[in-house]
Amino acid sequence: MKIKKLIKKTEQPALNATLRVYLGEHKFFGPGKYELLKHIHTLGSISQAAKAMNMSYKKAWDMVNDLNENCNKPIVMAQTGGIKGGKSQLSAEGLELMKAFEKIQHKFNQFLEKHIDSFLNHK
Amino acid sequence: MKIKKLIKKTEQPALNATLRVYLGEHKFFGPGKYELLKHIHTLGSISQAAKAMNMSYKKAWDMVNDLNENCNKPIVMAQTGGIKGGKSQLSAEGLELMKAFEKIQHKFNQFLEKHIDSFLNHK
Repeated sequence: MKIKKLIKKTEQPALNATLRVYLGEHKFFGPGKYELLKHIHTLGSISQAAKAMNMSYKKAWDMVNDLNENCNKPIVMAQTGGIKGGKSQLSAEGLELMKAFEKIQHKFNQFLEKHIDSFLNHK
Repeated sequence: MKIKKLIKKTEQPALNATLRVYLGEHKFFGPGKYELLKHIHTLGSISQAAKAMNMSYKKAWDMVNDLNENCNKPIVMAQTGGIKGGKSQLSAEGLELMKAFEKIQHKFNQFLEKHIDSFLNHK
């Protein structure tokens, strides 16, 4: 019996998974940091980016520091100044990191869409 | 700059993700249920399987019931009897479900191994 006949079709079956790059046990990069970088790039500010993501300012800074610390070049260049800091922008390397992740995320989504069919048609 | 030059190599970078089959928002199947079925198949008992996984008996039963309820045929055939029940075994459909998942999990692992390289070599 094909799996698609076996499953009661209350809702459409789908494969789902969260793609992350690890360094050993450490979560180096994933959708959370990707989204944060995207917001920093658009808004030019870590505090604004944190607000847009409903995330604490501290948490956003921790994520930025973690990225900068694990890379040989800064990913986010933050200018301190004023209450809750000044403007921040992504370095060229930060933009490349985003692009590299977008590329594998895209392939990953294609994989998930394709393989739900192999799963459902297994017999 | 290639991502692999950008990342400080404290530890070997790797892609990681947990593959799951969803029915809408509901987690229908994934590594946890797969492992539980495997143990039930080997040990012939839900309570023994729960023990092997360091999981409560109730939790194991909830997972088995969830599978059975979402399928048109039973996945685990449980015989009640005695304290904490009697013998249990996988149906043919339960074995097929495991095989179908193994197949996509294998492809998935291959995907992750292959695409960490595209990520690291992005420039």
